[in-house]
Amino acid sequence: MKLLYPTSLSIDTTLLEGFGVTLHPYDVKEPLPDNLLDAEILITWTNPVPRLKEEAKRLTNLRWIQSLAAGPNDVLSAGFDASKITICTGSGLHDHTVAEHALGLLLNAARRFFEMRDYQLEGKWPGHLGGPQPDRPSGKFTSLQDANVVVWGFGNIGKMLTPWLTALGANVTGIARSAGVRNGIEVYGEDKLQELLPKTDALVMILPGSDATKHALNAERLKLLPKHAWVVNVGRGTSIDEAALADALDKGEVGGAALDVFEVEPLPEGSRFWKTPNTIVSPHAAGGRPQNPETLIAYNLRKFLAGQELKNII
Amino acid sequence: MKLLYPTSLSIDTTLLEGFGVTLHPYDVKEPLPDNLLDAEILITWTNPVPRLKEEAKRLTNLRWIQSLAAGPNDVLSAGFDASKITICTGSGLHDHTVAEHALGLLLNAARRFFEMRDYQLEGKWPGHLGGPQPDRPSGKFTSLQDANVVVWGFGNIGKMLTPWLTALGANVTGIARSAGVRNGIEVYGEDKLQELLPKTDALVMILPGSDATKHALNAERLKLLPKHAWVVNVGRGTSIDEAALADALDKGEVGGAALDVFEVEPLPEGSRFWKTPNTIVSPHAAGGRPQNPETLIAYNLRKFLAGQELKNII
Repeated sequence: MKLLYPTSLSIDTTLLEGFGVTLHPYDVKEPLPDNLLDAEILITWTNPVPRLKEEAKRLTNLRWIQSLAAGPNDVLSAGFDASKITICTGSGLHDHTVAEHALGLLLNAARRFFEMRDYQLEGKWPGHLGGPQPDRPSGKFTSLQDANVVVWGFGNIGKMLTPWLTALGANVTGIARSAGVRNGIEVYGEDKLQELLPKTDALVMILPGSDATKHALNAERLKLLPKHAWVVNVGRGTSIDEAALADALDKGEVGGAALDVFEVEPLPEGSRFWKTPNTIVSPHAAGGRPQNPETLIAYNLRKFLAGQELKNII
Repeated sequence: MKLLYPTSLSIDTTLLEGFGVTLHPYDVKEPLPDNLLDAEILITWTNPVPRLKEEAKRLTNLRWIQSLAAGPNDVLSAGFDASKITICTGSGLHDHTVAEHALGLLLNAARRFFEMRDYQLEGKWPGHLGGPQPDRPSGKFTSLQDANVVVWGFGNIGKMLTPWLTALGANVTGIARSAGVRNGIEVYGEDKLQELLPKTDALVMILPGSDATKHALNAERLKLLPKHAWVVNVGRGTSIDEAALADALDKGEVGGAALDVFEVEPLPEGSRFWKTPNTIVSPHAAGGRPQNPETLIAYNLRKFLAGQELKNII
């Protein structure tokens, strides 16, 4: 049985030895050599979609695809036969890196590092941001201490992020499809947004990309946020109605937006977000570096060989 | 007995009632009215030094000054009679705010938000900072996870900051005058720097301003740091030899510097730090907002009235 692993990242294959499966590296940008086309297992990472579409036709023995991406839209759109092939995501491999980026964006917003940078580039001291300041004045987002942070899309990344936020003094509430208490945090359904948003200082969006989440943050919900509230998005760009958010930023109806994801990436030249006030543009940099992929691959390999249900099945 | 409290910040005086001391607000920028000159207790916050020098001559009954600043250089330079007057700092009132700022600067450095901002201002997508990336490549500071962070000046602020850093996966070591294990963190004397600096990914300086700390980080010690190491300073500007640091930045001998404090503030027009590569200029914004000053004042007031030793005596 052949397992194909990509050379687009470093994988410690010694952790995949001893399973009676032969391990074959492949270049995601090149056509697969003929001698690998009988492979049953394919690991993917940053495979170009056109290339993957070709391989979907050629890999006729394939039974399992393990993507290392949190949201493997590339694999889903490549035309693999879902009736024969189990497709698994890399959910969990990006929790730490995305959560760290989200925390950094929140502090960038609260401490206004982006505005300090604008002054620095002009050789000017932004005195209004330093020296004696009121401590956590109402109607401003200046600290995570005592801030009401709502994490919308409370999955693994939210669970990683939340203890850091609470350690910094924030009050964290989650929003997810299923309500309940998770890791000591109250998680509500979306019906609670009406009540939560007006008390929110920072809204952290970690929603997956899907039809169900499209424009989840729309004009109506943006209007529920206080004028000082920041929107942070490290999920998928499609979850925000970008025109509505740009309007809200231009009109000062929200405090700001720190965006790592966009409906179209790279962000087009004509996007309003380059110039809307209090906007931080981050180039889809939160994740993009799967951590310990060997552990997930080895776990699912054992399950696969044992005929048991794999982890992270789509 | 009269206690004078400044109107330069909001103080909840109800927490200071019931001590048999009369409470009098005063404007730090104006001469004190004659009827307050027999005060025995003075609380200070952002008092202009020339004004304070005048009051040092006029407040002839003064026995205790409670500054709310972490390092009350203004009070010390005003000429109060230290043989008659107990002077206390506001150490502890700034721990959370300074530690939060330090964490923000570390994440700004690791995630290169400053560089993203430069691209944003030009309407350009910094593709090299986003998309698929190697995970924590050696010789780069890209994450707090597994990073070796040295906190130089391991006092109250360091104790606040360290659990956040360890929660994010950093390995934290302290440097202080007295060695030992504090809050579960190994704290060494400065003699250990020779050994620690070459393994440091981020050096966080939280040293007080004094003759003993002047240019603590000099050319010789900068040379011990790896080329990718960042220097973060939220202590006092005098603790760094600025010319040596600017040289190291220009030559790429250190990874970068995130500086909230400088030898001269506001940072002069001609400072090299406006333009040195990988430099974040923050306008002394870490602290500047004493938190819960009433608790410290009330505690020391009880001690003062009981004739016991006060907290935070200089």
